[in-house]
Amino acid sequence: MNQEIKSQLQSIVGDRWMMDSPNELYVYSYDATPLYQAMPDAVVMPGNVEEVAAVLKVANQYRIPIVSRGSGTNLSGGTVPTEGGIVLVTNRLHTLHEVDQENLTATFGPGLITADLHREVEAVGLFYPPDPGSMRISTMGGNVAECAGGMRGLKYGVTKDYIMGIEAVLPSGEIVRFGGKNAKDVAGYDVTKLLVGSEGTLAVVTEITAKLLPLPPAKQTMVAYYQDLTSAARTVQRVIAAKIIPATMEFLDHATMAVVEDFARIGLPLDMKAMLIIEQDGTALQVEQDIARIAEICRSEGATEVRLAQTADEGAKLMAARRAALSALARVKPTTILEDATVPRANLATMVEQVDVIARRYDLQICTFGHAGDGNLHPTCLTDERDREEIHRVEQAFEEIFHAAIKLGGTITGEHGVGMAKAGFLDLKVGPSGMELMKRIKEAFDPHGIMNPGKIFAKSDRRRVVVKTHACTHEHNHA
Amino acid sequence: MNQEIKSQLQSIVGDRWMMDSPNELYVYSYDATPLYQAMPDAVVMPGNVEEVAAVLKVANQYRIPIVSRGSGTNLSGGTVPTEGGIVLVTNRLHTLHEVDQENLTATFGPGLITADLHREVEAVGLFYPPDPGSMRISTMGGNVAECAGGMRGLKYGVTKDYIMGIEAVLPSGEIVRFGGKNAKDVAGYDVTKLLVGSEGTLAVVTEITAKLLPLPPAKQTMVAYYQDLTSAARTVQRVIAAKIIPATMEFLDHATMAVVEDFARIGLPLDMKAMLIIEQDGTALQVEQDIARIAEICRSEGATEVRLAQTADEGAKLMAARRAALSALARVKPTTILEDATVPRANLATMVEQVDVIARRYDLQICTFGHAGDGNLHPTCLTDERDREEIHRVEQAFEEIFHAAIKLGGTITGEHGVGMAKAGFLDLKVGPSGMELMKRIKEAFDPHGIMNPGKIFAKSDRRRVVVKTHACTHEHNHA
Repeated sequence: MNQEIKSQLQSIVGDRWMMDSPNELYVYSYDATPLYQAMPDAVVMPGNVEEVAAVLKVANQYRIPIVSRGSGTNLSGGTVPTEGGIVLVTNRLHTLHEVDQENLTATFGPGLITADLHREVEAVGLFYPPDPGSMRISTMGGNVAECAGGMRGLKYGVTKDYIMGIEAVLPSGEIVRFGGKNAKDVAGYDVTKLLVGSEGTLAVVTEITAKLLPLPPAKQTMVAYYQDLTSAARTVQRVIAAKIIPATMEFLDHATMAVVEDFARIGLPLDMKAMLIIEQDGTALQVEQDIARIAEICRSEGATEVRLAQTADEGAKLMAARRAALSALARVKPTTILEDATVPRANLATMVEQVDVIARRYDLQICTFGHAGDGNLHPTCLTDERDREEIHRVEQAFEEIFHAAIKLGGTITGEHGVGMAKAGFLDLKVGPSGMELMKRIKEAFDPHGIMNPGKIFAKSDRRRVVVKTHACTHEHNHA
Repeated sequence: MNQEIKSQLQSIVGDRWMMDSPNELYVYSYDATPLYQAMPDAVVMPGNVEEVAAVLKVANQYRIPIVSRGSGTNLSGGTVPTEGGIVLVTNRLHTLHEVDQENLTATFGPGLITADLHREVEAVGLFYPPDPGSMRISTMGGNVAECAGGMRGLKYGVTKDYIMGIEAVLPSGEIVRFGGKNAKDVAGYDVTKLLVGSEGTLAVVTEITAKLLPLPPAKQTMVAYYQDLTSAARTVQRVIAAKIIPATMEFLDHATMAVVEDFARIGLPLDMKAMLIIEQDGTALQVEQDIARIAEICRSEGATEVRLAQTADEGAKLMAARRAALSALARVKPTTILEDATVPRANLATMVEQVDVIARRYDLQICTFGHAGDGNLHPTCLTDERDREEIHRVEQAFEEIFHAAIKLGGTITGEHGVGMAKAGFLDLKVGPSGMELMKRIKEAFDPHGIMNPGKIFAKSDRRRVVVKTHACTHEHNHA
């Protein structure tokens, strides 16, 4: 990128918010995904939608890649500037413009931290359910770009289910608005939902209107321990079949339990092979009834121990143990590769067994935990990226895991996105005609291909990894 | 369309399922929308996805318009073959393939009648919430094409919120599948949700997988009568502000009440100016508590009478009165034009007042009822299409109503779609850049523009109305 273009960027965002020193570029050369890293040519931090539009116009004119990002907690290499260009950081656009208590909506900039949104709306008795593992550092813009999930997906759905309106800037620099505060709106194609999960490949989202719910007045947490994982998986199916939809049904396998216990010292019984953490919310009475019925099902499916949290604090601690899983696993080996193969929930047990078989076949340490109620697994490989031979086996194993998920009616990614990491596998899920259609949709937004190039669609011939891969040392807190 | 092409169509679907006699074509020349009618060149009724694909290949090759439809209950002229061509009727694809009680999904063909889906899933204790007024005759394919709403949108959302997977045929004849039974799935762009509400302009949907919920065990219905509409609207806001989300909050203005009473004789008090019909579902206790609190709010906001249905049967009767609104209104004058301008619910009262002012200004009879909880109004003009002067005033009035809705942060259509009727107004909502973007999305699917041409995007120069407009006599049951 020549100095003339950099000067244009500087004049748009101001000197302070355009960076191009090697140290500054390095900071934006990676995200939370191991194995992917590349240097951008410049980093800009626009302060309003007009500046975003002006930056995109320059990028479009000179055909410069634009990689928009927030906190970079992405787990699919989606915010790594693999073709260089401009990293556009949206964190300055973090204003919560409004919590509308009559229409039950919140409107905010993409830089707003997810947990800050939670806190602000809960303060007035409202509720924004999606809670990705990274919520304390992730931005809502990132959540929208990836269609972030979390632990409450079973009952409450994912980010897409809450995004009602979007303001975005097209690569041409045009500012567009779709949706809004209307509970029903069928005016043309649903571009709002199309942008959710589009991974920065179509437009830069500059304002978001999200739907809120009343905050459930009560919540209770319980755990159940099992001697085998199949019983735990069967419990999940039985609870759903009993027409109870808990807010959360998480599971940890034995290996994950051991690592979490070692990390968090919360007294997990390590002679057990699996555990479920279940949370229900609603009115106090309903929660009590549901939890009692769930506990009964857990026992009838062979749970060795079922424990109800006696206080909110104890419940929060159990959930924190689950949330600590990735951090705990990340301590064990230099490289932690967290996947999110997902299957229809009835196939959960089969999928977990297949992950086990595949791990043994390739002689790898794969711990599995995740959102059991959603069929959303996180098989997590503890490895060392410096060991090229082992990394090769890891790649083979995950390829088999994706194939296994697809065979079970599942998908290659439940909540982390395609990014770089799964670009080579998308056709498994959507087929060649689906791939071509998605590429044409991409072109409809971005005819010159400047928006996050190389993501979603495999493009190995243009891959540009300019920094050697390195052990990932930044905070892990994302699953 | 020449005989050679017709022969090709016949050889694909069989003689019995290709029709081109004037009488048969006439049947498919209109839908439930007054003022729009045009003759197709042929009607085909394919029996499987391969036949749909083969028909589309022929149409694409010869650049013949394809208008896909089910029962034709459309209210925006969306299924009128305004440029001739082939009407592709999906009603033969009506099989309910599966109700999956473990994954809480149903998979079916687009020809399945909405109410049949309701009945089948409710028989096993499950629930598909969207309930458009036309549900006893509308098909699920039509519901998906229009993103149908209904009376339970406030708590349960609309069709889009339930469609998890789609099989569709592109204009090229390629068969594509997106989504599936996974609670979480972010593999590429969300083409599933993009197809929902795309009004037959992108692809022909040939199979649908929908999310189901557990059927709520209890339900209660109540009505509240008011001396003025503003108090009714304020009640709606107060209920939401009290963090109660009823399943249904419908309102009828005085004019609609009078017409419904004349039609259904259910004893509506005609000295009242407005009524709310409110339904809550859930567990018996929760329903009882919510209904009690709602009744209290109704009274404190000035409801003159609040009545709780004492039995399920009485509740069903009250709901039936609301469902009869359109049929009742349709009896009054030869032509009934039902609109669905929608605003954020907090602006409901303002919008209703503005509709009133506009009706008086143009000296028109406009009755208003609708989904108060969603801000989704149905201002309904009782007129006579043979009176060209009055129809001109109707058009002016509705144009003002759309402008008023947009000014209040609303939209031109909440649940009926853009079709022909609102194609000229879409830019009010999405702006010129949004229009251009939507046209490019359309081209990504349909480069030759054969899919339902003239719909969504105004194209007045190519409009082809080959049959004179006529009083609409077929069943009205759609709002």
